[in-house]
Amino acid sequence: MASLTSRLEHAVKPDALRAYLAEFISTFLYVFAAVGSAMASRKMMPDAATDPSALVAVAVASAFAFSVAIYVAANISGGHVNPAVTFGMAVGRHISVPMAIFYWISQLVGSVLACLLLKVAIVSQHVPVHGIPQEMTGFGASILEGVMTFTLVYTVYAAGDPRHGPLGAIGPLAIGFIVGANVLASGPFTGGSMNPAYSFGSALVGGSFKNHAVYWVGPLIGAALAGILYDYVVFPVQVPGIADGLGV
Amino acid sequence: MASLTSRLEHAVKPDALRAYLAEFISTFLYVFAAVGSAMASRKMMPDAATDPSALVAVAVASAFAFSVAIYVAANISGGHVNPAVTFGMAVGRHISVPMAIFYWISQLVGSVLACLLLKVAIVSQHVPVHGIPQEMTGFGASILEGVMTFTLVYTVYAAGDPRHGPLGAIGPLAIGFIVGANVLASGPFTGGSMNPAYSFGSALVGGSFKNHAVYWVGPLIGAALAGILYDYVVFPVQVPGIADGLGV
Amino acid sequence: MASLTSRLEHAVKPDALRAYLAEFISTFLYVFAAVGSAMASRKMMPDAATDPSALVAVAVASAFAFSVAIYVAANISGGHVNPAVTFGMAVGRHISVPMAIFYWISQLVGSVLACLLLKVAIVSQHVPVHGIPQEMTGFGASILEGVMTFTLVYTVYAAGDPRHGPLGAIGPLAIGFIVGANVLASGPFTGGSMNPAYSFGSALVGGSFKNHAVYWVGPLIGAALAGILYDYVVFPVQVPGIADGLGV
Amino acid sequence: MASLTSRLEHAVKPDALRAYLAEFISTFLYVFAAVGSAMASRKMMPDAATDPSALVAVAVASAFAFSVAIYVAANISGGHVNPAVTFGMAVGRHISVPMAIFYWISQLVGSVLACLLLKVAIVSQHVPVHGIPQEMTGFGASILEGVMTFTLVYTVYAAGDPRHGPLGAIGPLAIGFIVGANVLASGPFTGGSMNPAYSFGSALVGGSFKNHAVYWVGPLIGAALAGILYDYVVFPVQVPGIADGLGV
Repeated sequence: MASLTSRLEHAVKPDALRAYLAEFISTFLYVFAAVGSAMASRKMMPDAATDPSALVAVAVASAFAFSVAIYVAANISGGHVNPAVTFGMAVGRHISVPMAIFYWISQLVGSVLACLLLKVAIVSQHVPVHGIPQEMTGFGASILEGVMTFTLVYTVYAAGDPRHGPLGAIGPLAIGFIVGANVLASGPFTGGSMNPAYSFGSALVGGSFKNHAVYWVGPLIGAALAGILYDYVVFPVQVPGIADGLGV
Repeated sequence: MASLTSRLEHAVKPDALRAYLAEFISTFLYVFAAVGSAMASRKMMPDAATDPSALVAVAVASAFAFSVAIYVAANISGGHVNPAVTFGMAVGRHISVPMAIFYWISQLVGSVLACLLLKVAIVSQHVPVHGIPQEMTGFGASILEGVMTFTLVYTVYAAGDPRHGPLGAIGPLAIGFIVGANVLASGPFTGGSMNPAYSFGSALVGGSFKNHAVYWVGPLIGAALAGILYDYVVFPVQVPGIADGLGV
Repeated sequence: MASLTSRLEHAVKPDALRAYLAEFISTFLYVFAAVGSAMASRKMMPDAATDPSALVAVAVASAFAFSVAIYVAANISGGHVNPAVTFGMAVGRHISVPMAIFYWISQLVGSVLACLLLKVAIVSQHVPVHGIPQEMTGFGASILEGVMTFTLVYTVYAAGDPRHGPLGAIGPLAIGFIVGANVLASGPFTGGSMNPAYSFGSALVGGSFKNHAVYWVGPLIGAALAGILYDYVVFPVQVPGIADGLGV
Repeated sequence: MASLTSRLEHAVKPDALRAYLAEFISTFLYVFAAVGSAMASRKMMPDAATDPSALVAVAVASAFAFSVAIYVAANISGGHVNPAVTFGMAVGRHISVPMAIFYWISQLVGSVLACLLLKVAIVSQHVPVHGIPQEMTGFGASILEGVMTFTLVYTVYAAGDPRHGPLGAIGPLAIGFIVGANVLASGPFTGGSMNPAYSFGSALVGGSFKNHAVYWVGPLIGAALAGILYDYVVFPVQVPGIADGLGV
């Protein structure tokens, strides 16, 4: 087992710095499309929350953008683009704790910057914040977010499973698709985040941290469970690596 | 030919148990997104049955989620995620009867659990049940469901056809796409199930088994015909294996 | 050069018969989803022609179903699923004239059967027929259909181009996507057919051949031009084969 | 370093002429679908700017068509289909300046022809022109277009990165998806162009160059930054080639 010093040294090498940059750019790209599409729907139809086509717009934007975010980062950082995924990878010892912390920082900064840029460019609207409707409990919302993040992280693990053979080529599409499907299932209930960085950026720039814990507690628990299940039960013989998200 | 005892032994080995777990998780993931997206549309627009955008929402969620469900299970269980597919595979002797029974149980339990979770987390709504409108006959609905399941199982067989070469990589996408296309074609007529587990879970938790036979009779007959056609006419030289769904 | 007799003999060999079956099934599958999705939109919203979400529903169904139709037939018949594509292939001598005629028959019968089945199962609606609105001329509609079929057949040729390397794996997706994009661009103007079999089936079962020539003249000319351009200019060194659509 | 004369000679060789033809056809195909889908939405619902389903229609058409445009040109011209991408490639010295100029001309002519054809075939409507709403500033719009083009060109570079291994096969899909996601995020704010050729064609045929500079300044700066970042930081060891867009 590597000492803390050697891990810290590894965490500031050029390859590691490139990985942080990749996580920053990919999270920026994803949050820009996800938050921007919500703002675009609301610009077209002020009461967008009552039309399923607004849900389709945000879900398709999220699916497409997350696929791309994973794709462009895959061979540089492993393509996490989500603190919950990084947490799940750290639980499975696929990434060291110091690197995971830098991944988190890169993701959070990328998300905040995307929301800031949208706020500055589109002066006529507020940045929307993830929230839950009155009839939902915080507990119910946490369960939904947790279950959805479980399926997301499980898919990320499956995409990196070397037994997948030629199917490995479509991994980023599958990861984007599960995000889109889950947004369609949960949009009006929790906002469909599955991603603490996404929720944090919009909360900070949008100016409201109401129920914010929902978007950390649920996803982190769901991600950890997915990582443990895949590593110990589904594919117990994996060799751990650093940031091996997609295994490319 | 293997004896019943050896088949039963095979059906409880670790690899088989992992396959049941994979079917359970994938069916859960799929039914969660399919039923959840119907509930989300109805939450946004109470009369969602009158707007094609609600149909698009459910169809895209179904297509994306089924692609992912197949993808993550492909190299573990062959990726059936549907009792009708398992039935078609059993008819073609690609899976033994004892294993097929455990597959069915895993799929049904996964679907029921997904519906239960949605019911608990989203207290303000009932879980929607597959049904047919007044002007449709049960016979017409069974034909539609049977034809659509035929095309689905035919696609599953094609995805596992070794003659596909590099096209094998996109098999899970093709399987998800045929589900999405068929939902768009049949949503307001039969609900677009093609999957007895999906219909059973929502019927049990939603509390209505009206016309439920439609969602077993049609799909099982359609699946059996597809399996027979592919194995005896389209590709008569296949070597049967156990649970070789995608042949990965 | 083969004599007519040997070509006819080749056209009734088991492999050729399997190719006709594959074309029949794929065209059935495609037309079922395309026509069915138009009927589903109209069932939900009688005035579906005034809501872009109905256009999205039909376009996504067409894109998904055509991708799958190409995918499941690719290694058996080359995946034409469209008399215009077969015509373009015959012009480029990639398929013999006798085989092309059987391909056409299989495609037309598949389309008619899909429309008949929808008519029988969904008794409350007429099968919709491709048509053009009052302000369009038949000439303008033929140009649109011709240009769109040009881009479709050009994509089919590109998908079969051996210089594509690993990109060959996503050929059926690209072919489905160009169909979906073109439907979105032309739906309310020509119905977005690009496929004489699709138009013929719905015209026969729907009972109206008004402006039907538009859906043969435009697509056949567009397909021939695409085939000639690709074979003589874009990739002049191709070795012709029989039904080598996707070159798999 | 090659002399200007040898570069000019290279720029008129048969392979280069084929590349210009490929860029022309692909840009035509893309602009036809993107502009056509906007006209189709407006034909169905005159006030389409107030319904998110019109945004979904244009975004899906753009994503599908751009994927295909890249796909069919990939092995012939490298698949730029956008003057900003060509500019980013020229900045990174992946294409010579004389060839880049011919690429631009091909792309602009393709776009103009697509818009002209739509104008002639659909006589009842004007060709829509990219524009910005009153509450947006030209500066804000340029930033949005610049940021989106940055993510697009970054994805193009990533798709051509040889370290991507099997993921290279889905490059054209990723490039189309980032276009679709960005259109969903920016449609009602800037029109979601990211492509000076697309904006130029619709402006010329639609008859308005108001705010046209936004669609050149933003995209060209964003593209140059993406090219520099990828070549010097993300993947500094790339060997430059001519028009190596997707590296196939």
